[in-house]
Amino acid sequence: MSTNPIRLSAAEAEQLATAALVASNASEAAARATARALVAAEVDGQGGHGLSRVPPYALHARCGKVNGHAVPRVEQVAGAALRVDAGLGFAYPAIDLAIERLVPLTQANGVAVAALHRSHHFGQAGAHAERLANAGLVAIVFGNTPKAMAFAGGRRAMMGTNPIAFAAPAKAGAAPLVVDLALSVAARGKIVAAKAAGKPIPADWAVDADGRPTTDPAAALNGTLSPIGGPKGAALALMVEVLTAALTGSHYGWEASSFFDDQGGPPDMGHLFLTLDPQRLSGGAFDARMATLFEAIAAEHGVRLPGSRRLEARARAARDGLPIPSALHAELQALAARA
Amino acid sequence: MSTNPIRLSAAEAEQLATAALVASNASEAAARATARALVAAEVDGQGGHGLSRVPPYALHARCGKVNGHAVPRVEQVAGAALRVDAGLGFAYPAIDLAIERLVPLTQANGVAVAALHRSHHFGQAGAHAERLANAGLVAIVFGNTPKAMAFAGGRRAMMGTNPIAFAAPAKAGAAPLVVDLALSVAARGKIVAAKAAGKPIPADWAVDADGRPTTDPAAALNGTLSPIGGPKGAALALMVEVLTAALTGSHYGWEASSFFDDQGGPPDMGHLFLTLDPQRLSGGAFDARMATLFEAIAAEHGVRLPGSRRLEARARAARDGLPIPSALHAELQALAARA
Repeated sequence: MSTNPIRLSAAEAEQLATAALVASNASEAAARATARALVAAEVDGQGGHGLSRVPPYALHARCGKVNGHAVPRVEQVAGAALRVDAGLGFAYPAIDLAIERLVPLTQANGVAVAALHRSHHFGQAGAHAERLANAGLVAIVFGNTPKAMAFAGGRRAMMGTNPIAFAAPAKAGAAPLVVDLALSVAARGKIVAAKAAGKPIPADWAVDADGRPTTDPAAALNGTLSPIGGPKGAALALMVEVLTAALTGSHYGWEASSFFDDQGGPPDMGHLFLTLDPQRLSGGAFDARMATLFEAIAAEHGVRLPGSRRLEARARAARDGLPIPSALHAELQALAARA
Repeated sequence: MSTNPIRLSAAEAEQLATAALVASNASEAAARATARALVAAEVDGQGGHGLSRVPPYALHARCGKVNGHAVPRVEQVAGAALRVDAGLGFAYPAIDLAIERLVPLTQANGVAVAALHRSHHFGQAGAHAERLANAGLVAIVFGNTPKAMAFAGGRRAMMGTNPIAFAAPAKAGAAPLVVDLALSVAARGKIVAAKAAGKPIPADWAVDADGRPTTDPAAALNGTLSPIGGPKGAALALMVEVLTAALTGSHYGWEASSFFDDQGGPPDMGHLFLTLDPQRLSGGAFDARMATLFEAIAAEHGVRLPGSRRLEARARAARDGLPIPSALHAELQALAARA
């Protein structure tokens, strides 16, 4: 098998991913919404939330951990609050529905919230927040993930790495400010890669099963990922567990099944989307305040806006297409042909 | 001067702090609300937000950095959104007003927000969130502070240490779950104390003016505090700057004057309070989900609930009274006598 990547346009990649998912027991609508989100992550240089997810997603649709034919439903439970039931399907159709409904609800109320439940892996959290910022809103997005980190003082993996994303409209004509981060020091994928390469990992990435810092990737994978800032990061991760699992009525990290294999029932994840109307909350000061922030950042030597790397990746993808590893490309083609 | 602390009951401490503030050019109402919050922090073992703040608060009221006679005003700017103008007065009267108005607004809308502006040091952030949780709500509280940390990649202090607090009602009869943390690895006060003691500091607490990690507290105080998780903590701090300064129309960290001296105009800080109705958002699942979380935490060896230390401090204060350093006690008495 060639080691040269295959170059596809975003449209071609979306078509291939959609076909692979439809052939794996998903509706055209769910597959299309899912493919669009995965390709957008690939375009943004977030391959970990991109096309590499199609094979495990297809596995979940086939084994029933995802209902590929689910149609999300929204219920307005109070003046500014939505519950969105993803129906144990893919997350993205439910997220599309939540975003569509949050925009007018926030404009009417100054703030709104969507509690998504019976959901699945929600991919690049910052992209969801960015779509809301493109509609003129400030957005905070919380998700939990299957267990990877311990409670502060504990040794067993209980909480997810629990992403927090944030986006805010910038000055006219500029892309929104986007913050998107997981609360672990390093992604689990980096430790898997170090193990495969036979290389040690930095001592602050993970602890072994006895809670001791380790540079051995195998010991790290048997232990837990370290949260940023020790007990502070663990406390933030606990906050995200409450916001996403308790507040939506979904699974905690330690209850959720893996996103990658066919073991267990549906992961049943929850997500929380909070949206704010910056114009009304700031008394009209928001745009000028954001301009001041961007000027201050531009004046600091060596400082870049968070999220600026994704904009560079987007420009590169538009120019050069998406480089898809040939093995992954062949796998997607085989999935698409399996119908 | 004796080195033995003076022991006061909470009521005695409140009375003394109120008198010191009234004598320093504050209204009885503002002084009382402020004294109540500072003593509550002292009771919770958060001395850094406790009675030690009375002398700088009194200085601010005298020099005009705080209007001690301000009366906060609230404006409902949309269905679920409030703007609260602290009138360049102390933060606590405005916070009391915000909490009073947020509770019914959240019950009506499922979510609500208060953007507080023209405010000042807001003390123990977790205590504000806890009050909202005691009313049955889930609360997230954001504040920024005068500059202490650099942007990711930068060297100059620009952002505050930017506390995030979170509280959620627990099972019946139990205190709420409370998370309350600043985004710096260590508090500036710990570095000041190390310098006074002639002791080195851990290398991950701060960097010097050239951005290099330092164990020298003097060099650290000329540099910047390190955020938790490096660029991740810096990104979270930037999010808090946008939520508190841009979204409320208030000062960024680098624009705010010091909380401790009489230089510059009013700090003009903003705070953002977000509140959620857990029952309706979770479809009634919240209480059972929280019970599951508390059981999981109790089952993990070595794990304590975040915020449990404050409950122990409260019990100790109720039993033994508050130990006030004798020099501080004398200073408060002198302030109170100065009318």
